[in-house]
Amino acid sequence: MRILMLGDITSRPGRRAISERLQDIIKTNEIDFVIANGENAAGGNGITREIADELFLAGIDVLTMGNHVWDKKEIYNFIDKEARILRPANYPPGTPGTGWGIFRLKNNLKIGVVSLAGRVFMGEQLDCPFRTLENVISSLTKETKIIIIDFHAEATSEKQALAWYFDGRVSAICGTHTHVLTCDARIFPRGTAYITDLGMTGPYYSVLGVKPEIVIRKFITQLPQKFEVASGPWQINGAILEIDEGTGNALAITTLNEIEKML
Amino acid sequence: MRILMLGDITSRPGRRAISERLQDIIKTNEIDFVIANGENAAGGNGITREIADELFLAGIDVLTMGNHVWDKKEIYNFIDKEARILRPANYPPGTPGTGWGIFRLKNNLKIGVVSLAGRVFMGEQLDCPFRTLENVISSLTKETKIIIIDFHAEATSEKQALAWYFDGRVSAICGTHTHVLTCDARIFPRGTAYITDLGMTGPYYSVLGVKPEIVIRKFITQLPQKFEVASGPWQINGAILEIDEGTGNALAITTLNEIEKML
Amino acid sequence: MRILMLGDITSRPGRRAISERLQDIIKTNEIDFVIANGENAAGGNGITREIADELFLAGIDVLTMGNHVWDKKEIYNFIDKEARILRPANYPPGTPGTGWGIFRLKNNLKIGVVSLAGRVFMGEQLDCPFRTLENVISSLTKETKIIIIDFHAEATSEKQALAWYFDGRVSAICGTHTHVLTCDARIFPRGTAYITDLGMTGPYYSVLGVKPEIVIRKFITQLPQKFEVASGPWQINGAILEIDEGTGNALAITTLNEIEKML
Amino acid sequence: MRILMLGDITSRPGRRAISERLQDIIKTNEIDFVIANGENAAGGNGITREIADELFLAGIDVLTMGNHVWDKKEIYNFIDKEARILRPANYPPGTPGTGWGIFRLKNNLKIGVVSLAGRVFMGEQLDCPFRTLENVISSLTKETKIIIIDFHAEATSEKQALAWYFDGRVSAICGTHTHVLTCDARIFPRGTAYITDLGMTGPYYSVLGVKPEIVIRKFITQLPQKFEVASGPWQINGAILEIDEGTGNALAITTLNEIEKML
Ligand SMILES: [Fe+2]
Ligand SMILES: [Fe+2]
Ligand SMILES: [Fe+2]
Ligand SMILES: [Fe+2]
Ligand SMILES: [Fe+2]
Ligand SMILES: [Fe+2]
Ligand SMILES: [Fe+2]
Ligand SMILES: [Fe+2]
Repeated sequence: MRILMLGDITSRPGRRAISERLQDIIKTNEIDFVIANGENAAGGNGITREIADELFLAGIDVLTMGNHVWDKKEIYNFIDKEARILRPANYPPGTPGTGWGIFRLKNNLKIGVVSLAGRVFMGEQLDCPFRTLENVISSLTKETKIIIIDFHAEATSEKQALAWYFDGRVSAICGTHTHVLTCDARIFPRGTAYITDLGMTGPYYSVLGVKPEIVIRKFITQLPQKFEVASGPWQINGAILEIDEGTGNALAITTLNEIEKML
Repeated sequence: MRILMLGDITSRPGRRAISERLQDIIKTNEIDFVIANGENAAGGNGITREIADELFLAGIDVLTMGNHVWDKKEIYNFIDKEARILRPANYPPGTPGTGWGIFRLKNNLKIGVVSLAGRVFMGEQLDCPFRTLENVISSLTKETKIIIIDFHAEATSEKQALAWYFDGRVSAICGTHTHVLTCDARIFPRGTAYITDLGMTGPYYSVLGVKPEIVIRKFITQLPQKFEVASGPWQINGAILEIDEGTGNALAITTLNEIEKML
Repeated sequence: MRILMLGDITSRPGRRAISERLQDIIKTNEIDFVIANGENAAGGNGITREIADELFLAGIDVLTMGNHVWDKKEIYNFIDKEARILRPANYPPGTPGTGWGIFRLKNNLKIGVVSLAGRVFMGEQLDCPFRTLENVISSLTKETKIIIIDFHAEATSEKQALAWYFDGRVSAICGTHTHVLTCDARIFPRGTAYITDLGMTGPYYSVLGVKPEIVIRKFITQLPQKFEVASGPWQINGAILEIDEGTGNALAITTLNEIEKML
Repeated sequence: MRILMLGDITSRPGRRAISERLQDIIKTNEIDFVIANGENAAGGNGITREIADELFLAGIDVLTMGNHVWDKKEIYNFIDKEARILRPANYPPGTPGTGWGIFRLKNNLKIGVVSLAGRVFMGEQLDCPFRTLENVISSLTKETKIIIIDFHAEATSEKQALAWYFDGRVSAICGTHTHVLTCDARIFPRGTAYITDLGMTGPYYSVLGVKPEIVIRKFITQLPQKFEVASGPWQINGAILEIDEGTGNALAITTLNEIEKML
């Protein structure tokens, strides 16, 4: 089976990219399931009911989240009822929503998806991602061998270490959070596909989705800035995974890096 | 002219990659000048006189450094006399060595090279990289239009912001430090080539050059670990820049991602 | 001469403490000059024109600031015209306001006051406080030997190191930012008075000025919280310095720790 | 009953202070039990078998630790057999040693002691101190009402929040780690004694125990420095708790701040 994973969908240009291109990408690549990180979908910060619905309608099956998950307060109203939105699984017990789910494809195949967050250089103090994933996997493996993790983290060492540790026990570990697609997609020795970061599906002329001049001003003046999302052409970043349905092992991982053509 | 930039050369496998492949890469790609980050060349930590000489002999013209520059204490003995090793320019005034230099090619063309470090998520508290680079550029532009920066930093926002800010005033800004090659090489609107990270030239089966089991143990136990560099096949990460000698603008940037073939 | 320094005046209870107690403290202790940190005066975040005036009227001569200086946007309207409000001197050149000033007492004595911020564990990336203070002192010493520094920093090592370094060249270095008064007031060997932190002049039943239940919820859930300032009785934290007017050396430093009596 | 708690015993001057003064302090203040933080006892870094024995012999009953607990590798050889040395309880399950213990006084009274570490601004990523302490307390309260916590943490907010949260459920929460005694000892509304930091029992002329010139050089040059512990006169920092044996509530907390008299 073939799974499309998309890097953080960021504000209007990111959503426009989805509406303009997702169906075609799905068809061309014979995609069976689409996972996208949605933590920046609403104006760069968090997600709303309306935007989530727009993304599901456009063809996304599951939205994983990250440190921006709670930015739009209204998420508290629907995250408990919406199984297709996953917040990082290593938030403390009792946190609204859930960090993982099992989803059924048309052919009745089941796929486990996990949202997980790193701890190095991150603002939140979450539970150990290694132990959390260990627990989640032990639940998931009772139901399916196809397990996909979005590991939302900053430090490349934490991402690679987690992937080496779980190699062979999950189908794929794909990083998000840096908003920069990395060039290290590979299959680890025991069958887990890995990429350090899926990048960003959002405005191409930007600093992680924000207008460059604002981020520059922040760095130069060190004064507080009101961040504004950039507009203009989009980029679509992500990866396509091919998974062996029998073993759950990854057969291939290919990066997707498309930039909107401007006339 | 064509410049090869190499991501952090890391320990023995990284140096073996250089000795086995650099001359061939230079010839095949008609490279005029080679810049490599050397902060991890000696067993993953710093550099020695002997190893620097080995790398220069193998065809590297300039070694830029990063936060690991001082790991091998003997660097204090030779960095002041060795113009081809650059430590980050935004260390305080009075720091041994220099952060930038002008180098002359065979055809008498001059090229300015700058080593610069970021401040976000980095252990050191260095001077503002924006203001430092502003000053360095005002010196360099008196001599040459070809200016290349190795920006050694963790945060993707800091790297992209710096590149947007200096777009059009330097030939290229290439990031290092994360040891992961990124998939975002591009030429900015005013002519500066950019890539978030050049990756690592070092052991392929590793976590940033270190044996995976040790880094995993560190994350899981949170106990101090003695890091050991990994052995085995190498990867070569970097980028090839094509620069217009008249304007100093970048004409092309292409990533280099080669993995040693094992029999 | 005798100088009163007050730890971060925090929201309404802090201001009430000032209005109820400052004149009496001044008289009882024969205070000649009052310096207070005002970064949290307006609802815990920043300062307004009105609140600054209220504090000046109550008897404060100079307000130093810290990382919260820009929280109330209206400060940009008056900081350039208001010499009695000092923001950290090690913000980049061109930052609104100024980081130091010379103030004249009734007896024509001049006193130099500096606001300075640390870099360890602080959100902003400011210039080196050691080099900044070196420069400021070289200006100030032309005019006066009485120089007082509010060093707004988190790490005790950075605070102590700065004090040891400038010992004998300034009258006093008093830390702020942690909102906890420390018990280490002393005079260093060459005559500089020192205390790691002046604490907080604000609500006694609080976590650094904020309602305890909100900060607890933040730590336990790791979810975003809207901070609310606590009410109830105040505490007044600070120190009284006795300075030799001839040499500028400190003769004594005594902490002030008063808690509102509830009936 | 009366308990003496001592701030981080740091290197030779700290141990000398213990050998010269502890017995007298115990007698004068009618101390029943002595808890000291020992993470810096051996040359500023960690602890050895020999030094631990020296401290126990001198009258210390329990040594709590902090982030420096593993600095001397030999601790792995004895921590599992030595119930009187406690490492932070919120290290992951499986960590050598234990984070808490129940100790029996001469009059058969039992006292529970917990070593706990903060997460804000600390290098390690430990488990949630709130949830960990919740679990530890539920074990301890089966055996005794007298429960004392050494909370080894940097951020004053984390320390105060923990104390407010557990107020009334433990006898005392005393902070350590900053090496600076704070002036905020108090009893919280429901009976828990609290102080943000017990300070350091170590060299008086130092930066947290280290020679000032070395720490200064570190801050100014940002180059790696080999830290050397300071010598000279000692300071003894800590607090004396008076606990109601029937309820476990604190009746009084008084700080101890003694500086060696030099002839
Ligand atoms: Fe994101
Ligand atoms: Fe994120
Ligand atoms: Fe490196
Ligand atoms: Fe580095
Ligand atoms: Fe404050
Ligand atoms: Fe502050
Ligand atoms: Fe310590
Ligand atoms: Fe510590």
